[in-house]
Amino acid sequence: MPIDRRHPREIRADIRGGKISGHTSGMGEGYVQANLAVLPKEQAYDFLLFCQRNPRPCPLIEVTDVGSPEPVGVAPGADLRTDIPRYRIYKDGVLADEVTDVTPYWRDDLVAFLLGCSFTFEWALLEAGIDLWHVKHGKNVAMWPTSIECRPAGAFYGPMVVSMRPVPAGQLSKAVTASARFPNAHGAPVHIGDPKAIGIEDITQPKWGDAQHFDPGTVPVFWACGVTPQAVALKSKPPFMITHSPGSMFITDLPNSSLAAL
Amino acid sequence: MPIDRRHPREIRADIRGGKISGHTSGMGEGYVQANLAVLPKEQAYDFLLFCQRNPRPCPLIEVTDVGSPEPVGVAPGADLRTDIPRYRIYKDGVLADEVTDVTPYWRDDLVAFLLGCSFTFEWALLEAGIDLWHVKHGKNVAMWPTSIECRPAGAFYGPMVVSMRPVPAGQLSKAVTASARFPNAHGAPVHIGDPKAIGIEDITQPKWGDAQHFDPGTVPVFWACGVTPQAVALKSKPPFMITHSPGSMFITDLPNSSLAAL
Repeated sequence: MPIDRRHPREIRADIRGGKISGHTSGMGEGYVQANLAVLPKEQAYDFLLFCQRNPRPCPLIEVTDVGSPEPVGVAPGADLRTDIPRYRIYKDGVLADEVTDVTPYWRDDLVAFLLGCSFTFEWALLEAGIDLWHVKHGKNVAMWPTSIECRPAGAFYGPMVVSMRPVPAGQLSKAVTASARFPNAHGAPVHIGDPKAIGIEDITQPKWGDAQHFDPGTVPVFWACGVTPQAVALKSKPPFMITHSPGSMFITDLPNSSLAAL
Repeated sequence: MPIDRRHPREIRADIRGGKISGHTSGMGEGYVQANLAVLPKEQAYDFLLFCQRNPRPCPLIEVTDVGSPEPVGVAPGADLRTDIPRYRIYKDGVLADEVTDVTPYWRDDLVAFLLGCSFTFEWALLEAGIDLWHVKHGKNVAMWPTSIECRPAGAFYGPMVVSMRPVPAGQLSKAVTASARFPNAHGAPVHIGDPKAIGIEDITQPKWGDAQHFDPGTVPVFWACGVTPQAVALKSKPPFMITHSPGSMFITDLPNSSLAAL
């Protein structure tokens, strides 16, 4: 897919106007993309606390004011009801609808959470000279739930989900330091090496995404994954929840470099 | 004051038993100390969101479950009602009492917030070879409210408070990198140099704490300060709030190094 180098504001206008309704991979190159979770105020405290207690899988980069769809901190003027290509509507934890505009579903008691995503640290890995097999071959990463339990908060609990990328042994240190600079995009790996140590029985059979190819001398490296908060939130079956559709992210005005901790 | 090198658990037992009721400076050397703010659940969402939106002045290291006084994430077995030497009770934003045990004030709807404190990054500065005048002379730092507005959240709003330490010009870079490693203890300075640029008219007249001495060639360096969240919380006049008394902190089981981002 050709890379869309326009400013996120222009890309979001096309999304809002219905000209873009698919994945956002390769769009707004260099800008932070974010996962979306929208919950009623009644569940918002527990979810906010869950994110605070589990910053690796749930790196919060923005929380809107109650009822407001504008993420003023990361994209002033944007509208979270229309500026994401595709949304999912969940009722009592069950997928009820998939739409390109959630304006009809919006309510005065909704709070939108935006969470950092792996695109930012993958960009950092590529910049550091680490080849990513799935990027080169146009595949998705491989994902599993693990035996690592998140710290619960109120109604929300569940296992941490991880994504896995093979990294050459000689580049492991670089993979750690390059991603560690971006704690708001999952940060450093949560595990390196033996999949069984974190409850993954078969490295060739991901639960979600695509199986990865291991070149000789590469090691599986596991990062906390942005699927965790959605999986955990849905497990508690909130009466109403809106998320982005997988791969259709919100493109913020923040350059990736602005998330660097150091 | 002699340095108390015992494990925080033993020091907290002495505090709980009434043997220690003063400042905690120099106690539990090498362990993270924390600011306390306790609010009813009704104000907790706004305060949690305020901290999320203002991580420099309000670095959250622990939030207890509603009604529970045990900070399981940072000091399992501790009791926040008794394990701090001295507390302040505020009613409608006004100081109502100062006590050494808040058990009689505890309620089932209270949430305790622990926030990182400057002791951690001062330890990092000292380790990096930067002399701190106020430490050497047994004084407090100098603090001011600034013209930097915090990002509001619900009922909570107000200016960022900063603390100031003079640093030799040749050590400014080291002061930045050493403290930046500890984002959960206020992190890197928010300003270096001209006090007027952040609304401080007279560098010799702190609003709180002690005036600092400037050796020739030293530059004022400003860090976000843990007084901010309390000042901001009290401004909104919550019906009920408990805090630690200034200087009487909660000593956690976390070594300072565990807060390092990298």
